[in-house]
Amino acid sequence: MVVALLTDFGTQDYFVAAMKGVILSINPDAKIIDVTHEIPPQDIASAAFVLKACYRDFPRDTIFVCVVDPGVGSERRAIVVETEDYKFVAPDNGLLDPVLLKSDSFKAFSITNRKYMRSEVSNTFHGRDIFAPAAGHLSTGVDAAEFGGQINLTVKNIPTPVTINGQRDARVIHIDHFGNLVTDISNNELPDRFELEMSATTVSNLYDFFAQADLGELFAIKGSSGYVEIAVREGSAADKLKVKRGDRIVVRPHE
Amino acid sequence: MVVALLTDFGTQDYFVAAMKGVILSINPDAKIIDVTHEIPPQDIASAAFVLKACYRDFPRDTIFVCVVDPGVGSERRAIVVETEDYKFVAPDNGLLDPVLLKSDSFKAFSITNRKYMRSEVSNTFHGRDIFAPAAGHLSTGVDAAEFGGQINLTVKNIPTPVTINGQRDARVIHIDHFGNLVTDISNNELPDRFELEMSATTVSNLYDFFAQADLGELFAIKGSSGYVEIAVREGSAADKLKVKRGDRIVVRPHE
Amino acid sequence: MVVALLTDFGTQDYFVAAMKGVILSINPDAKIIDVTHEIPPQDIASAAFVLKACYRDFPRDTIFVCVVDPGVGSERRAIVVETEDYKFVAPDNGLLDPVLLKSDSFKAFSITNRKYMRSEVSNTFHGRDIFAPAAGHLSTGVDAAEFGGQINLTVKNIPTPVTINGQRDARVIHIDHFGNLVTDISNNELPDRFELEMSATTVSNLYDFFAQADLGELFAIKGSSGYVEIAVREGSAADKLKVKRGDRIVVRPHE
Repeated sequence: MVVALLTDFGTQDYFVAAMKGVILSINPDAKIIDVTHEIPPQDIASAAFVLKACYRDFPRDTIFVCVVDPGVGSERRAIVVETEDYKFVAPDNGLLDPVLLKSDSFKAFSITNRKYMRSEVSNTFHGRDIFAPAAGHLSTGVDAAEFGGQINLTVKNIPTPVTINGQRDARVIHIDHFGNLVTDISNNELPDRFELEMSATTVSNLYDFFAQADLGELFAIKGSSGYVEIAVREGSAADKLKVKRGDRIVVRPHE
Repeated sequence: MVVALLTDFGTQDYFVAAMKGVILSINPDAKIIDVTHEIPPQDIASAAFVLKACYRDFPRDTIFVCVVDPGVGSERRAIVVETEDYKFVAPDNGLLDPVLLKSDSFKAFSITNRKYMRSEVSNTFHGRDIFAPAAGHLSTGVDAAEFGGQINLTVKNIPTPVTINGQRDARVIHIDHFGNLVTDISNNELPDRFELEMSATTVSNLYDFFAQADLGELFAIKGSSGYVEIAVREGSAADKLKVKRGDRIVVRPHE
Repeated sequence: MVVALLTDFGTQDYFVAAMKGVILSINPDAKIIDVTHEIPPQDIASAAFVLKACYRDFPRDTIFVCVVDPGVGSERRAIVVETEDYKFVAPDNGLLDPVLLKSDSFKAFSITNRKYMRSEVSNTFHGRDIFAPAAGHLSTGVDAAEFGGQINLTVKNIPTPVTINGQRDARVIHIDHFGNLVTDISNNELPDRFELEMSATTVSNLYDFFAQADLGELFAIKGSSGYVEIAVREGSAADKLKVKRGDRIVVRPHE
């Protein structure tokens, strides 16, 4: 059974190791995979993006443990959500919304039964004390209903793209390791001819692959996460344009 | 059998991969888990802290391979230590002391038998050539006594906290990924009312969880490793206070 | 079956996770090991160095998936290469050359059969769409010949060392996590007495292990990858000398 971990814990401390130790203590056969632990601290939207971009590539029944949890220790709920194909363990803070919007039906449970938590539960590290134990027990076949009552989960809709005077107001939703700017413009939505404007720069070339561009040239490309990206061949578009996540991009159709 | 790795090797080179390859060549069924490879170079105390903070969360019989080893190639011994529940492979440089102080009885062996080393042994990479092979063989059931003679190990006591004129002289012993300052004040030791002074700043609020604080507010919190931490909600206390590991904190009880 | 991953993808995004998900979806029993994902972006030579330095430490039949791929989506081929002991999946861009030069005989195949690719194949992420599926299928026993036709592979020879007026013109080929400078001078090639000159500094001490040096002292050491390194005890030679990869070192025999 695959247990996939997604956190903002970094890898320099004992945090991730403690979670893995807890899971393996409950289920020595768990197959633990790191999605990433380098989500920017407390950045729920970034975690949601990364999860959505890759969860469907995992085997059916994978258990995702997603801990970006600025509300740890507060009243926010710890939850398990089961979709048709996967299980998710996370704080109830919107991290799972993009995934759940793609699910026709899902069931959610709150985790309240101390029996399925670590013997000592801290107020600051539920990754180790609540989420990892829940994942461990799920991976051995414990029913999520054992953890606590079924609950209704409110899933926020993704806002409809804003269009003003025929101009689509887009955003940079992620900047990847290479400095490519991932936008919220879906690959299908991009007009055949277009201008993308950001940071007083206009991009109107769409390439099929990176090596089509000249070195240093800015261009658009249909990205592997389903969204249009702004890129520089063998360079960082983020550095070149001094753009950060959340920054605005104006999309103009062009004939 | 879980084999857990803790080093200062970073993850950009061939170092960690070579260790894993060696272990899997000896025991294809070993379950290798990374504790961390981002211990600051040569920082034995930091490795000792991280190990102590998480080893008890691992399954019984886990083999920990701990390589922070500025003396590699010199006369310092390579050792295996067995406690009631775990096995440790490491250089004999104090890295295991905090763990061994919590053990009622342990046995230590030096690793001298070439039969259990890599066919070529370098002077600079015993992680690959001595420690990983030892862990691999331990994980297949080889008795530690086969590696070399049993030895006496001198374990240094942790110094008693220094108190001057009723003021406890504490230290920052770790700074985590979020910039939280982990002190050497154990959670139980903190007076009900207190002042913590460092960097010309005084902290006297103790919160149960992070989200109780206002954004940007400095506060103390009982940490998940058993020690009091100084934190900033959704920010870095280390950046805010310009504090580094080893820096002094004065603890004053307060009525 | 061990599947070892070597990329320049970093670990902050969904890239590595997607590859692992794809592999495990094909072969739930695959044992996935990270070599590193921190190869500098597009740096094929650096990937080649790391791979060569550790692949022989892995168990026989390990499948290495090596994706540093500036030409992704272009005409460059995706290939599988089988040596006597290992299998490699990679873009055909020279990354495997140093390994293949050490192989007496190898067979290469291009990957063209869509049946063994991800259902959707992007132009920007063949790690997920072509290389990971190929590795997954290889690990279940699919013959590489099923992926596409056998091909001839041109392997570039490593250039003969340049010697001018009895002076060997060497290079820094890698800088490791500790700041040690790995040169292209093989351990066997170093004269008994020598001067190494770089950055207006001369190094003539050869030590057997790091702790022989004084703190801060520059020295040469026979490195664990088979090449001479320039090092500083408990410090970074790269920082001290302001040297970068590719920089020149003059080797003078000395009596």
